[in-house]
Amino acid sequence: MNNIKYYLERVAEIFAEEQFVFEPKELYEPIDYTLRLGGKRIRPTLLLAANALFGGKEEEVRDAALGIETFHNFTLLHDDLMDRSPLRRGQPTVYTKWGDNTAILSGDTMFALAWRYFLRKPSPRLQEILQCFNETAIEVCEGQQKDMNFERLPIESVSIDDYMDMIRQKTAVLLAGALKIGALYADAPEKEVKRLYDFGIHLGLAFQLQDDLLDGYGDTAVFGKKTGQDIRDLKKNYLILRALQLATPDQRLALAKLYNDTSVDEDNRVTKVMAIYEVLCLKPEIDKAITKEFDLAAEALEGIQVPEDLKTPLRELMESLNGRKK
Amino acid sequence: MNNIKYYLERVAEIFAEEQFVFEPKELYEPIDYTLRLGGKRIRPTLLLAANALFGGKEEEVRDAALGIETFHNFTLLHDDLMDRSPLRRGQPTVYTKWGDNTAILSGDTMFALAWRYFLRKPSPRLQEILQCFNETAIEVCEGQQKDMNFERLPIESVSIDDYMDMIRQKTAVLLAGALKIGALYADAPEKEVKRLYDFGIHLGLAFQLQDDLLDGYGDTAVFGKKTGQDIRDLKKNYLILRALQLATPDQRLALAKLYNDTSVDEDNRVTKVMAIYEVLCLKPEIDKAITKEFDLAAEALEGIQVPEDLKTPLRELMESLNGRKK
Repeated sequence: MNNIKYYLERVAEIFAEEQFVFEPKELYEPIDYTLRLGGKRIRPTLLLAANALFGGKEEEVRDAALGIETFHNFTLLHDDLMDRSPLRRGQPTVYTKWGDNTAILSGDTMFALAWRYFLRKPSPRLQEILQCFNETAIEVCEGQQKDMNFERLPIESVSIDDYMDMIRQKTAVLLAGALKIGALYADAPEKEVKRLYDFGIHLGLAFQLQDDLLDGYGDTAVFGKKTGQDIRDLKKNYLILRALQLATPDQRLALAKLYNDTSVDEDNRVTKVMAIYEVLCLKPEIDKAITKEFDLAAEALEGIQVPEDLKTPLRELMESLNGRKK
Repeated sequence: MNNIKYYLERVAEIFAEEQFVFEPKELYEPIDYTLRLGGKRIRPTLLLAANALFGGKEEEVRDAALGIETFHNFTLLHDDLMDRSPLRRGQPTVYTKWGDNTAILSGDTMFALAWRYFLRKPSPRLQEILQCFNETAIEVCEGQQKDMNFERLPIESVSIDDYMDMIRQKTAVLLAGALKIGALYADAPEKEVKRLYDFGIHLGLAFQLQDDLLDGYGDTAVFGKKTGQDIRDLKKNYLILRALQLATPDQRLALAKLYNDTSVDEDNRVTKVMAIYEVLCLKPEIDKAITKEFDLAAEALEGIQVPEDLKTPLRELMESLNGRKK
């Protein structure tokens, strides 16, 4: 029986074996750069582990693992351009290194390369697998649009429900989709596929809420980002939206003013917003929300009808994410 | 037996029946806007006609027709952003109307919507059809990158062969791909699919060379663009590259200077370059190149082993493009 370390290593090997540079090199070098930057590679790892959970053969999902990660990196490449993020994984982003046009076109090509991987091998359930991949891709785009819409709205008009729906689309459906695709390749029963998908959704929501937690309370040296970057960027996240719910009318006014007034100096805004978070005891609040999602994920995993020991890798991955510091 | 008018009208009806606006509307309204702008809709028309050529059922390719045109419009949307073109079909382009980020993300979503259309219906040859679509998409991206590379190069270092290879990828393969996909849905024999693909390649090359001709010699009122826009934008096209081949050493020096020196006033550059084209009798040269491609297209169409009268729609389309003024 395998553990999660085995799948993480397999994914690293699969990427190391693959070639990403073709002609014209101006198009493919940024793709190679992006795919070699690494990252956690959670999605292909989930895909391989989900496939094995139902007795699938690794050889049959190797390409799908490449496809799901290539797609994920395409979305990061375009998101970084749209968000004007200078760094990704500590390295310059593609648009800063090669310009906007290269970022657009190399991104488009990566989306098509993801499809090339998915189309390499036949499968009895190919149409269903591809539909799952594509509907997931559409939801990710919709989630990104909602995120951009939120940036333009005053914080008072975004509810926590709206926010959870946005992060479900922007982050959680791709983790869930990776698991579902792995299971479909192994021809898993419909009911189990559904449970595995739910596991992925809650894992994804927990993961995104952790990002919000780390943004407010992370150790800059470990997390790799400045504290309060979301506050600096005036991004809505769980902390600020929950703070608004818990705040007194005076605190609510102060928060709205700090968040909606772009003339306030950034460092000053972070200090003042964080001070209100302190008073409202917000950290236990977000910890509770994260724990709730991890519990729901664990429950979904528990419900899957396969021998318990086969679930070890997915349980290990979940546990390694729970309490992550970066 | 149908004629080309029938297929053009069917494509218009198919688009009129379809809904393109979903939530969030900020994402889908630019997509609806783009797909409703119209245009010639040559690619879905070719797809339907190619399918009928081999006895296919229109019902089975309706979605693929939507898919190929949605993909084409996605490439135009991103190209307009990369080229900073303010107008498309006489209307403001998406990035000028909604901003760069919306153009990026709505474009990405259109690519996924194209896939949704292609994935709607099963087909015994689905994997092959989807591979054809995707490899075509990759070639279109490669062609666009080569076009952008050429912009940065001095004209002396781009050969006509390089240029023909670029327009084959950027324009011709999508026409050829549309025809091939239509034929694959009708389960056409491999040999005939190959001939139809060649027909599309030469038709596409002729089409792009006509754009070059119209750029230099078109009637602005009919063509809808200023004469010499490629000269203004310092874009390589067939005219300038052929002019370089035919020029005396002095003329070649003058052309290179005019093309490589961005400080020259645009109108002045157009006048001077066009004067050299006049002396070199360039119009008959490009006419000859266009005729050659139309002849090769006609030859490929002739070789296809189906009753001659079934080829009428494709022959009509080819003839309607031959000699087009816009």
